[in-house]
Amino acid sequence: MVLLQSVSRAKRPGWLLPALSLALQQNAGGAQQLSGERGLSTATAMREQQSGKRVASLLGAGAALLASASLLWPDRAEAKKELGILPGSKPAQPAPSSAPVKPAAPEPAAKSAGLGKDDKGRPIYSSEEVAKHKTLKDRVWVTFKDGVYDITEFVEMHPGGASKILMAAGGSVEPFWALYQQHRKAEVLNILEPYRIGTLEGGAAAAAAAAAAAKDPYASDPARHPALIARSMRPYNGETPGSLLAAAPITPNDIFFTRNHLPVPHLDAEAFRLRVEGEGTRALEFSLEELKTRFRKHSVTATVQCTGNRRNEMSAVKPVKGLEWDQGAIGTAVWSGVRLRDVLRALGSRGLGSRVWRPPAPALTLCCSPVPRLPAAMRLLALRAAGLSEEDPLVKHIIFEGADKDATTGDVYGASIPVSKALAADGDVLLAYEMNGQPLSKDHGFPLRVIVPGVTGARSVKWLNRIVASQYESGSHWQQRDYKSFCPSVDWDSVEWGSAPAIQEPPVTSAITEPAPGTPLSAADGEITIRGYAWSGGGRGIVRVDVSTDGGRSWAPARLLPPPPGAPPPGSYSGAWAWTLWETTVPLPKPSADGSLPPAVELVCKAVDASYNSQPDGVAGIWNLRGVVNNAWHRVKLDLEP
Amino acid sequence: MVLLQSVSRAKRPGWLLPALSLALQQNAGGAQQLSGERGLSTATAMREQQSGKRVASLLGAGAALLASASLLWPDRAEAKKELGILPGSKPAQPAPSSAPVKPAAPEPAAKSAGLGKDDKGRPIYSSEEVAKHKTLKDRVWVTFKDGVYDITEFVEMHPGGASKILMAAGGSVEPFWALYQQHRKAEVLNILEPYRIGTLEGGAAAAAAAAAAAKDPYASDPARHPALIARSMRPYNGETPGSLLAAAPITPNDIFFTRNHLPVPHLDAEAFRLRVEGEGTRALEFSLEELKTRFRKHSVTATVQCTGNRRNEMSAVKPVKGLEWDQGAIGTAVWSGVRLRDVLRALGSRGLGSRVWRPPAPALTLCCSPVPRLPAAMRLLALRAAGLSEEDPLVKHIIFEGADKDATTGDVYGASIPVSKALAADGDVLLAYEMNGQPLSKDHGFPLRVIVPGVTGARSVKWLNRIVASQYESGSHWQQRDYKSFCPSVDWDSVEWGSAPAIQEPPVTSAITEPAPGTPLSAADGEITIRGYAWSGGGRGIVRVDVSTDGGRSWAPARLLPPPPGAPPPGSYSGAWAWTLWETTVPLPKPSADGSLPPAVELVCKAVDASYNSQPDGVAGIWNLRGVVNNAWHRVKLDLEP
Repeated sequence: MVLLQSVSRAKRPGWLLPALSLALQQNAGGAQQLSGERGLSTATAMREQQSGKRVASLLGAGAALLASASLLWPDRAEAKKELGILPGSKPAQPAPSSAPVKPAAPEPAAKSAGLGKDDKGRPIYSSEEVAKHKTLKDRVWVTFKDGVYDITEFVEMHPGGASKILMAAGGSVEPFWALYQQHRKAEVLNILEPYRIGTLEGGAAAAAAAAAAAKDPYASDPARHPALIARSMRPYNGETPGSLLAAAPITPNDIFFTRNHLPVPHLDAEAFRLRVEGEGTRALEFSLEELKTRFRKHSVTATVQCTGNRRNEMSAVKPVKGLEWDQGAIGTAVWSGVRLRDVLRALGSRGLGSRVWRPPAPALTLCCSPVPRLPAAMRLLALRAAGLSEEDPLVKHIIFEGADKDATTGDVYGASIPVSKALAADGDVLLAYEMNGQPLSKDHGFPLRVIVPGVTGARSVKWLNRIVASQYESGSHWQQRDYKSFCPSVDWDSVEWGSAPAIQEPPVTSAITEPAPGTPLSAADGEITIRGYAWSGGGRGIVRVDVSTDGGRSWAPARLLPPPPGAPPPGSYSGAWAWTLWETTVPLPKPSADGSLPPAVELVCKAVDASYNSQPDGVAGIWNLRGVVNNAWHRVKLDLEP
Repeated sequence: MVLLQSVSRAKRPGWLLPALSLALQQNAGGAQQLSGERGLSTATAMREQQSGKRVASLLGAGAALLASASLLWPDRAEAKKELGILPGSKPAQPAPSSAPVKPAAPEPAAKSAGLGKDDKGRPIYSSEEVAKHKTLKDRVWVTFKDGVYDITEFVEMHPGGASKILMAAGGSVEPFWALYQQHRKAEVLNILEPYRIGTLEGGAAAAAAAAAAAKDPYASDPARHPALIARSMRPYNGETPGSLLAAAPITPNDIFFTRNHLPVPHLDAEAFRLRVEGEGTRALEFSLEELKTRFRKHSVTATVQCTGNRRNEMSAVKPVKGLEWDQGAIGTAVWSGVRLRDVLRALGSRGLGSRVWRPPAPALTLCCSPVPRLPAAMRLLALRAAGLSEEDPLVKHIIFEGADKDATTGDVYGASIPVSKALAADGDVLLAYEMNGQPLSKDHGFPLRVIVPGVTGARSVKWLNRIVASQYESGSHWQQRDYKSFCPSVDWDSVEWGSAPAIQEPPVTSAITEPAPGTPLSAADGEITIRGYAWSGGGRGIVRVDVSTDGGRSWAPARLLPPPPGAPPPGSYSGAWAWTLWETTVPLPKPSADGSLPPAVELVCKAVDASYNSQPDGVAGIWNLRGVVNNAWHRVKLDLEP
C-alpha cells in the first residue's frame, strides 16, 4: 500500500492523459504503442527512484496500467477523502502493505436467488442482485462481459483512486474502461479474474432487449454511460459528476453531459440532407458528404453549458421549474466541422432567385457601408454578390431546426442566433460532425449539430436538418418562452416572455468540483486541495478565480491551469470559448489553544472574466422562475473533524 | 405659485429638451426660432387650459422661458424634496400665490465690507462675499456680468425647480445659462434685473487674471463649469452631480465629467499633425483637415466612464488609492470623427516600406485565413495589400499617445487596445473631433481624441497625436501599472501588475442618481420616484434594472427609458455603446397600526446586461487596491419622516 501510494503521488497535472488520449483517438494506429511507452518510461523512473527489486516485481505486468492511471488521478489523498476514509480510520479489509498484492479469498457470496450455477459451477446472479453491491459495507461488485466480480479488496489498491472505481460499483466496468484506454489490455483482465465470484444472468443483452421491446418514443434512446448522473429519463438528461468534470480540460465524449428536450432521433448519414434557405434566396441542400468536401474543415475547442446548470441552488432558495442540475451540466470538447459562415456565404452568392424583392420598412439605410447609394434592390444584389452579409436588410437571425420532434404536437426543437454572430470571422460557429475526433454520438446530435461557441447550450441545436436566414428569431418554444431570466419578483402568473431577450451569451460562472459537498475533512491533514472550473460567455477569458475557506470573508487567488488544446491562454479578451480549470491548496483551520475547531468549513469560489465581470454574491438577487443562468458564488460546505 | 406649478407639472419626459438642444446646436441658425415656437405653442395650450387673462399676463414676456424650462425639469415635487422643503414646512418667504409675481423688496444687504458704491450708488461686493450666500437661510445671491442679485424670493418660482437654480448660488449664473439655451433671451434679464442688490468687484475677469498669473503647469487649464464637482484640481478631475447626470441621455458638454491625468495641453489646430505608424510600415502623417477630407465622417453615440467611477464606495470598505469619485464619472455624447479602422487600413495599404521583414517566432500560422499558403513574407504582402488586417502577424495592439505630458518625467499619457477591436467593422472606434456637434473642448481633447465605445475611459486617449500599430501593448504606466483589478487580498506590497490584464471592457453597472443620499423623505408623500443609469462594456445592452426599497430583500423592475439618438434599443445584444436611463415610482412604507415608521429607507439598484451578467451584491468581494471597476449593487439611504 505504501508503495502504491508512492506511485500514485507522482505529481503530474491530472489532465495530461485525457488530452493525450484524445490525440491518440485521432491517430489510432499509434495509440497502444505511445501509451505503453509513456507508461513504461514512467514506471522505469519510479523503479529507479525506489531502488528496490520488490517494487518492480510488485508492479509486474500491471506497470503500464498503474503508471498511466497515476497520471490520470494523481492525488490519492483526495480520493481517500471522497471515499470517506480518513487518516486514522481504516478501510474495510486493507491489503497488507508489505506483501505482494494478491486478492483475498472472496467473501461468502450473497445468495444467488435460485438462479442456479453456470457450467463451471459458479453461481448465477441477476443484474438486480449485482446492483445491491455498491459500497464497501455491502461489498463492491462489478461485471465484465458475463462475469460477476467482488472487487471489495481491490478498491483501495486501484491506482486511479477508490472514488473512481466505485463509480462502476453495482454495474459493468466496461463503459469506464472504454473511457480510459489504459484499461484495454490483457494485463488488466489478469488482475480482475481472481476476483470472479459468479456469472451474470443473461449478460448485458438482456437489458437492451427489454428496452427495445417497450413501446414508447424513448425506447430506442441510446445507452448512456453509467457515470452520468441522470436528472430525467424521458427525455434523457444526465450530468457529469464533479470529480470527473474537472479532471481534464477536454471532457471525454461518453461522460459529456447530455441535454435532450425530446426523444433521440435516429438519422441515416447516407440519406441525411441539410436544407439551407433564406428570405429572398433559393434554398440549398447538402448531403453530409457534400458539406465535408465542399467546405474546409475547422476545429474549435469550446465549452458547452446548459442554461440551467446549477439550478439546484436556485431551488434551494425558492422552487423553480426545471431539471435539478448540480454543477455538471457543462463540458468541453474539440468540435470539428464546417463553418456556418462559409455555408451561409454560399447561400448568399446563389443570388436572389425568383422572388421579387421589395425594400422593407423602415427605409434601407446603409450609411455606414462602403456600398454606393444605388437604388435599394440594386444595393441588395451588390451586397449578396459577395455572399450573405451583416448589412443584408432581410437577414437579422439565423434559425436552426433539429430533427428531434414532439410526437404529440409535431414541434421540432429550434433556436436562433443573431446574424452578426453567425457571420463573424471570429465567431467560430460550426456545423460540427465530430466531437473529440469521433463522429458525433446519437446523444450529441449525429450526424450534424450546431456549435455556437460562447453562447448558451440551447442554441447549439443537435440533429440539425434545417437552417433559415430570417428577419426574425426562431419562433420555437425554447427561443420565445424558455431560456430567459426575469426579476426575482416575476412569477408564473406575471411573467411576460416578450419582455426579456432570449439568452445568448451566458454570464461568467465558476464552480468547485472537488471536494464534493459533505466530504468529511480532517484538520490533521493541515491543508486541502480544491479544484474547479470557470467560464464566461462571448469568448471572454477567465482572468482570475478567487477561493475562500471562510464562507467569503477572505479570499486568495487560485492557480489557473493551462488551457485545453486549441484554446487561447486564460485572460484572453476574446476567442476564449473553452473553460479554465483551476486548483489551489489552502490551509485548513488549526485548533485553537483549547483544542477547539470550527465544526465546518465553507469553501467558496468566484471568477472574473476579461470584461472584469464577476459573479453575484448570492442566489437570491438573480433568482428567476425558470432557474436559469445561476452564476452566484459557488459554495461547498464540509464538516471539519480533528 | 399654484399657476406656476400647473405649468411646471405638464408631464413631458425630462430628457426631451437637451436632445432638442443638441439638434439645435448642430443647426444654430434655427435654434432661437424653433425653441421659441415650441415654447409659445406650449404656452398657448396652457392659456387655453387655464382660460384666464391674468395667467397670460402673468407669464407675459417670460412665457417661452417658463414653458421651455418646464419641459426640462418637469417634476417640481422632486425639486422641492431636494431643496428640503417638505409638505407642511414653508419656504422662507413664499410669494402670495394669487398675486402677480413681483420681486419682494431686497432684504437689507449684507455689509459690502467697505468696498464702496458703484456709479449708481449700489454697494460693491467681493466674490468672496457673494459666495457666502448659497442657501435660503443665508439668502441666495448670484452674479451676472458685473451685477450681484439676491434671488432668494425667486428660487421657489424658478420653472426648472429650486434645486437647479440653487446650483448657481454664490456664483455666476452664466455657465448654467450657457448650458440651457432657453435662458439666452432678453426676457430672462427682465426677470432678473429687479433682484439686483449691487455690483461685483472687478467682475469675472479678476479670477481668470489671478490664475494666469500663477506660475504652474496647471495655470493655463481651461475654466470649468461650476456644476462639476471637483475631485482634484492639479490635474483637474470633476464629476457631474447626480441630479444632472441622468436628466438627459445626452450629457451636455460643459458638465461632462473631466478626467485629466496631466496638465491640459494647448494645441493649435492648424499646426496639428497625427502621426500613424506601425511595425513593418512607413509612417503617415495627417493634418486635421486631411483627416476630415480624406476619410468619411461617422458619428457614434457612446458612454464614456472612468474606470474609477464609484470608487468612494470601495474606500468606505477599506482605503484605496485614487480619486474619490462618486457615481458621476460617466457621461454620454454623440461623438463624430473618422473611423480608426479606415485610418489603419490606409496605413496597411501603403505597403511594407523600406524595412526588411522577418517572420516572427513562433512560426506564422494562418490556418483560418483564406490566404493561400505562400511563403511567409509573400503572405504578409498579400495580407497588407488590402490594408492592415487582424491576421497581420506583426500587429496585435493599437497604441495611442496623447500630447499631455508630465513636465518632470517627460512621460506622455498613453494606452492601447487590441487590434481586433480597432479593426472590427462593428467596433466603431473613432478618432473624434466633435462632441455633441461642437469641436472638442480643451478639457475633452481638442483637437482630436480617441473614442473606444464599450471600453473603459482610460483607453479613449485625449489630445491624440500618435498611433502605433504594434505587437505589444502600450508600455505606459496607465496600461501596465494602473487600471487593473486584483483579488481583495492583494495589497501594495504583494501586487504583481503583470498578473492581470489591462481593463478594456468594463462590467455591467448601474447607479441611482435621484434622489441623492440623505434626502429627507416624507412618508406622507406616499411614493417616491427614483432615477438612474445603467451601462455595460462591450456594447452589451441593458436588459433590465431592478430596484429595491428594502435594502435588497425584494425587487421590482424599473422602466427603461428610450435610448439616446443614434443608439439601439435597450437589451440589444451588441452595439449598445450608450447607457440606458431608467426610472420608477415606488410606494413608501406606510405607518403601522401604532403609527410607527421605519426610520430610514435603503434604495438599491442592480442591472442585467445582454449577456445576463449582473452586479455583485456587495463591494467587499470585488474590493481592489486601486478601487477600480466597482459595480456592486448601488445603495442610497434616506431618512424617512412622517
